[in-house]
Amino acid sequence: MGLAQKVAGGDRRAAARLISLIEDGDDSIRPELAELHRNSGHAQIIGVTGSPGAGKSTLIHKLARGFRERGKTVGVIAVDPSSPFTGGALLGDRIRMNDLSTDPGVFIRSMSSRGNPGGIAKATCDATRVLDALGMDKVIVETVGAGQSEVAVMDVVHTVLVIVVPGLGDDIQAIKAGILEIGDIFVINKADRDGVEAAQRELEMMLEFENEKGPWRPPVLRTVANKSEGIAPLIDKIDAHWDVIRKEGILEEMERKRCRREVLELLKHKAVLSLLAEYGPDNFDTLIGHVASKKLHPHDAVEAILSKKRPNNKKKNKKK
Amino acid sequence: MGLAQKVAGGDRRAAARLISLIEDGDDSIRPELAELHRNSGHAQIIGVTGSPGAGKSTLIHKLARGFRERGKTVGVIAVDPSSPFTGGALLGDRIRMNDLSTDPGVFIRSMSSRGNPGGIAKATCDATRVLDALGMDKVIVETVGAGQSEVAVMDVVHTVLVIVVPGLGDDIQAIKAGILEIGDIFVINKADRDGVEAAQRELEMMLEFENEKGPWRPPVLRTVANKSEGIAPLIDKIDAHWDVIRKEGILEEMERKRCRREVLELLKHKAVLSLLAEYGPDNFDTLIGHVASKKLHPHDAVEAILSKKRPNNKKKNKKK
Repeated sequence: MGLAQKVAGGDRRAAARLISLIEDGDDSIRPELAELHRNSGHAQIIGVTGSPGAGKSTLIHKLARGFRERGKTVGVIAVDPSSPFTGGALLGDRIRMNDLSTDPGVFIRSMSSRGNPGGIAKATCDATRVLDALGMDKVIVETVGAGQSEVAVMDVVHTVLVIVVPGLGDDIQAIKAGILEIGDIFVINKADRDGVEAAQRELEMMLEFENEKGPWRPPVLRTVANKSEGIAPLIDKIDAHWDVIRKEGILEEMERKRCRREVLELLKHKAVLSLLAEYGPDNFDTLIGHVASKKLHPHDAVEAILSKKRPNNKKKNKKK
Repeated sequence: MGLAQKVAGGDRRAAARLISLIEDGDDSIRPELAELHRNSGHAQIIGVTGSPGAGKSTLIHKLARGFRERGKTVGVIAVDPSSPFTGGALLGDRIRMNDLSTDPGVFIRSMSSRGNPGGIAKATCDATRVLDALGMDKVIVETVGAGQSEVAVMDVVHTVLVIVVPGLGDDIQAIKAGILEIGDIFVINKADRDGVEAAQRELEMMLEFENEKGPWRPPVLRTVANKSEGIAPLIDKIDAHWDVIRKEGILEEMERKRCRREVLELLKHKAVLSLLAEYGPDNFDTLIGHVASKKLHPHDAVEAILSKKRPNNKKKNKKK
């Protein structure tokens, strides 16, 4: 029996193994991924984003507990964006949810891209399918609010929670980072701090101004995650959002968009690989040298690769 | 006379016009870009990143003033990542540096990607070339610390300043966002707040642990930008970094890497466009429909596009 089939049968070890293979970018598991894809579509995928220090991990911990109390199974994927600069994730698993780790209705996993640039969003997308196929009702994806994979990861989720804290939430710059447009639910965490009123006022004003009127109006909620305050109303809103997007036909459109983006991302990756293989690494290096020495603009280098024109090493021929 | 030539002659209006055309993604300016590329290579490109609320804009304002006092010309590019979700930048120009705006030795510009996803890094790269060719000694690029373009923009700069504030800088999560690896200089801004000692200790400890020993050891500096404190030592460090990377041959390697990334990004974009044009939008839509309805995994869809295999609408042929 293949891993994907085992996962569909509820095998947690198979799920863990499959996610590792996904992280490795192992191409031999493609039939498994196709099988997973066919078995997915049950879970609500919930993205949680926000600045470092906003308390995302604690909030997710409490959300997971809250969902469990309501009889839902919960998967958690913590995305640790390894830097493209060195290829390594800085630290290992980052969520320690001891009281949840023995619960068979919870599956927690942290992911890294293992030096595969741009691969984290792709891998996360497949990992959500694993947890979905495993039968998790809610799959929570945590990403840190910095790094290029942020938006890409948010593309693969159904419901985006944006976590802010007082004193940052009311800063004009926070509003410019594009978070207003991606958020389905805004959470002011650490709401026992000063400045919560101002943060809420400002967020709501901005949402009023920016958001299109649709079937869903992004609410602003307050939590104090480390005291477990405000968790139940937040879970109610997460459920309500899921109801709305399923009832209003939004989910299907969302799935199409998700698939479209995923196909395009993969296509970019594969197309470039095959073009470069055809062009040859030595020719490519020579070409880059010409760009670095200002003889060619990057546009012209791309043209050369696409038209399979070999770089010329003679300088006098380079200047046109 | 072309725009690029005018820019090289110090024409500020031509520079502004050229950056607008770059933002528009207008392909007709490619000869101008090639000319610009040939005329660039003089300026130190300085990236400033950090969480919303860290005080980046104020700090950049003071840095620009400080560089001016030392007789350097300064360009500032504020990158406003328009959300890929709606295609629109939220607000317009965000830096208001009134005392600098009448100084002919300063050129300030904010950029948006105008709905061209992934285009902001590319456009920013060409915009730095404009300011470089215009004769600016220092070009400061500001990006907000959230969004997918962050890392891509940091690829086009020589010196990365990471701005943190006390109370966030010492948070364990801040360290996980990969910022340690991209920073050349760390700045604890708002250093008159509580927690500055702890933030500095923690940052230095992490840097000690994480950074490779090289010719440059990323320092941790303190500033209170709105009181103009700590600006001169920061400028000294920025200059010192520029000296080191030029003397140690790092700059050439950096230029190669910059060019390499830029060519690859452009290549992805162009390769996908030409593949999709060839495949046909209707066939592509049908294919995406198959993926969304779980008949095909994204991998198989990509395979179909690369091998130019038209999607089959008959269901029985879809299941293999």
